Amino acid sequence: MKNIGYYNGKTGPIEEMTVPMNDRACYFGDGVYDATCVVNHVPMAIDDHIDRIYRSAGLIDIEIPMEKAEMKRMLQGLVDQVEGDVLFLYWQVTRGVGMRGHAYKNAGGTPSIWAFVRPSQMSDPFGVYKCITMEDTRFFHCNIKTINLLPAVIANQRAEEAGCQETIFHRGERVTECSHSNVHIIKNGVLRTAPCDNLILPGITRAHILKICEAKGIPVVEAPFTVREMMEADEIFFSSSSNLTCRIGEIDGKRVGLKDEKTFGAIRDAYQLEMKNECGV
Amino acid sequence: MKNIGYYNGKTGPIEEMTVPMNDRACYFGDGVYDATCVVNHVPMAIDDHIDRIYRSAGLIDIEIPMEKAEMKRMLQGLVDQVEGDVLFLYWQVTRGVGMRGHAYKNAGGTPSIWAFVRPSQMSDPFGVYKCITMEDTRFFHCNIKTINLLPAVIANQRAEEAGCQETIFHRGERVTECSHSNVHIIKNGVLRTAPCDNLILPGITRAHILKICEAKGIPVVEAPFTVREMMEADEIFFSSSSNLTCRIGEIDGKRVGLKDEKTFGAIRDAYQLEMKNECGV
Repeated sequence: MKNIGYYNGKTGPIEEMTVPMNDRACYFGDGVYDATCVVNHVPMAIDDHIDRIYRSAGLIDIEIPMEKAEMKRMLQGLVDQVEGDVLFLYWQVTRGVGMRGHAYKNAGGTPSIWAFVRPSQMSDPFGVYKCITMEDTRFFHCNIKTINLLPAVIANQRAEEAGCQETIFHRGERVTECSHSNVHIIKNGVLRTAPCDNLILPGITRAHILKICEAKGIPVVEAPFTVREMMEADEIFFSSSSNLTCRIGEIDGKRVGLKDEKTFGAIRDAYQLEMKNECGV
Repeated sequence: MKNIGYYNGKTGPIEEMTVPMNDRACYFGDGVYDATCVVNHVPMAIDDHIDRIYRSAGLIDIEIPMEKAEMKRMLQGLVDQVEGDVLFLYWQVTRGVGMRGHAYKNAGGTPSIWAFVRPSQMSDPFGVYKCITMEDTRFFHCNIKTINLLPAVIANQRAEEAGCQETIFHRGERVTECSHSNVHIIKNGVLRTAPCDNLILPGITRAHILKICEAKGIPVVEAPFTVREMMEADEIFFSSSSNLTCRIGEIDGKRVGLKDEKTFGAIRDAYQLEMKNECGV
């Protein structure tokens, strides 16, 4: 198939799939999601992503009506039906179907499981990317991967309008993350990245990058950094499960970074290798 | 009919209505809504609500593909098909249908219009209600009536678990609003209510209350107030289009308010009368 959609056991082409109007996704964004890239029909770091969606669900009091192993089999079953060397796998769990009402304990619904797989393409790992910055006006639950994503939608649209690939959020002076990636800086050979509090998503690529740094002897500081520290860093890059590592050469129209190819390149190459090993490229 | 659902021109019983999986409501909560109570098949303050959904949509860059007069006719047409003296009318506009992707300008979809009408009941205007308080961790766009409502869902659930009717949010010391209503205090005969900034929804019932105060010579101060000022107020009440005015007698298990029946009662009675006149009760 060219692509596939899934909702509570039903499948079909994404464009033809429908869901009940009363699914709480529709009125409240009452759900959590996860997503990863798929190369050679192998979803990258799938166990990490499955662990994360269970953790996200737990944090908003949703009990996923499926075991982790079953979810993994179900997702792989979808992936296997779609043609293409590089695919995008997305899935979400919402609080279920019921007449609209904020409180949910007596709503009686079983959480709904949604998924889709479609063709995708990887960002060029050797590319240089442009970003804009924007005040981070999101809620204080950014550690949970929920589908309350409107500020991220607006921020990403603004990046696109500016001819850029990402928007870097900051709360006042403190850089948090991007509209759908984490952001890191390198200064004097040290990788600096925001700590995993409620202001950023604990990125799976971020976690893999930290392990790579440890293995390669690149020092890491998990501490907040400011917009100014970012603008003056030797390297700046964003990371996500769909785009892996993306080196930044311009922010808000100013040339930045691109001064420590050695350190950035070591991280990039190690993660590319990890992907190739995992996916058998 | 017992109830009716509507999606882009299609109608049916709410429980049987489906929508495309790719509607951006489903992945991003990318839409805005409005709602009001309907008495004797007259939707309360419908023009105000229609004005507000157009304003909300404009603030997130959605152009509603329907004139206001047409929306009003469409909603009335739905209301007229449902039996019952008191109904709940809900409608939303989402950014439309398209393959998932944050940026939307090139997604090419037309905004989707959703609605439903179902039986409801008014809160007792002479009741005394209980609330809990909770730190307000929502985003900084509370002036826009979006469907990114997860923190409100959780807050309302917590109220229900505590045997209460509402949760009052505060950012630090400053009281903002409730999970789905505005909150006001009366002290020494003066009504105090938070100003319409990005931390609260500009409630339509709130606006009507301010007009009532003006007509009745009740002084109004539109300025932030603290949790402590609320706990020590003569009266505290929350207001919404579904519940009109609800007097609060207990917050976080402490007895509060209920000390200025004259001022609160004047506002309550005037708004009840307004409703009766508008709906011909």
